[in-house]
Amino acid sequence: MHFTSEQRLDDAVIEREFTLGEIPGILWTPASASAPAPLILLSPPPLGLRKTYPRLVARARHAAADGFATATIELPGSGDRPRWPAAEQARADLRRAMEAGEPVSDEIIDALILPLVDKSVPEWQAALDALLSLPEIGGPVGYSGGVISIGTRLAVVEPRISAAVLFAGSFVPRAMFEEARQVTIPLHVLLQWDDEGNDRQAALDLFDAFGSKEKTLHANMGGHTGVPQSASDEAGRFLARHLK
Amino acid sequence: MHFTSEQRLDDAVIEREFTLGEIPGILWTPASASAPAPLILLSPPPLGLRKTYPRLVARARHAAADGFATATIELPGSGDRPRWPAAEQARADLRRAMEAGEPVSDEIIDALILPLVDKSVPEWQAALDALLSLPEIGGPVGYSGGVISIGTRLAVVEPRISAAVLFAGSFVPRAMFEEARQVTIPLHVLLQWDDEGNDRQAALDLFDAFGSKEKTLHANMGGHTGVPQSASDEAGRFLARHLK
Repeated sequence: MHFTSEQRLDDAVIEREFTLGEIPGILWTPASASAPAPLILLSPPPLGLRKTYPRLVARARHAAADGFATATIELPGSGDRPRWPAAEQARADLRRAMEAGEPVSDEIIDALILPLVDKSVPEWQAALDALLSLPEIGGPVGYSGGVISIGTRLAVVEPRISAAVLFAGSFVPRAMFEEARQVTIPLHVLLQWDDEGNDRQAALDLFDAFGSKEKTLHANMGGHTGVPQSASDEAGRFLARHLK
Repeated sequence: MHFTSEQRLDDAVIEREFTLGEIPGILWTPASASAPAPLILLSPPPLGLRKTYPRLVARARHAAADGFATATIELPGSGDRPRWPAAEQARADLRRAMEAGEPVSDEIIDALILPLVDKSVPEWQAALDALLSLPEIGGPVGYSGGVISIGTRLAVVEPRISAAVLFAGSFVPRAMFEEARQVTIPLHVLLQWDDEGNDRQAALDLFDAFGSKEKTLHANMGGHTGVPQSASDEAGRFLARHLK
């Protein structure tokens, strides 16, 4: 992990950009922290960190006010990271299917999501290794993320994550339902009820499949990007409750 | 409205029992209030106020700490209030169907719920008239209730209610879906995901049917009576946000 820039935001948060091998990322820590801070991994939607920065930094500021460090890394194939041909093909197939008003096939969903999960989960684990080796970061670790299949896999394979906020706003490969049954950590699932590009029933089925004894589903109106502030605040409180 | 008793709880809340005609009720007001307090109607589940008192008073204390008055009245056919033969018959039919593992028919659901809604909604409106005439109660008015069809009808017919918390834990007559479309106030709907005696799909369909632009569904684990404290807190925050 190599820090490439550092700045203070409002004297309250230290923002540092870093690279982890080829992967760019951002770490936010409370400026006032005296003890190692608990950590929230902010996994972005696959839009690129630059595009998502305003939303991420807003959540980082809120988290810092509660004493949390937050960190994010660019997803494979997002931002300036190299695309891979199969994902480009899947994206084109998806666009074609949606424009034609056809149902999106399992093949397209698998090609779109599964390689992304396979590639990104080890990257988040490597980032976690690096972040937890910093003296200013302690545990426990929470996760809050935009591609629900990445969060599901991470919750299964990464025992250092204690609680997760998942956003049910992307296609779910059938194979993920089986992985969902193996999740046992507390989950807070956000669903936008009238999300045009999301399959509501699949989201409800996935919520049902999660093996966690403690899981909560918060559904709101407002389309894919319309998560209300109150819902973000509740997700923040969920993590604060479980990581303290 | 006739007050029959008064006591202070912890010096923070004044609890007064009252009767409204034949109907017993309880009013809780913040002991420290200097201005007329906004009001939350706490509609109980159909178990009788005596049985529900511990849960009601806990919510009344929380609400008083936020500056709210709360009030409840006994539902028709609950507590010491007279039963009516058709409801007794419907309850017996329900028990028989459930014990036999049969689906509960629309006829049973209608006979169980619709007369309860028809009888109780005008009573809540009469209680509201009486409560709002007290100098210590102002507006706005919120509703938080246990029989979702009562809350749905009230939200349609009672313009003085500005926001409602509804508990999706009872059978829903088909006729209520049409009424749900006419609801326009902000709604916060609680659903216990694995509620044995509740039809989850009907609850999701009812949530979908509500006409409100602002509605949120919070689903949690834990069975019919297992609403977690965090979910009650969030419902309280929803009302505080909309009534202030």
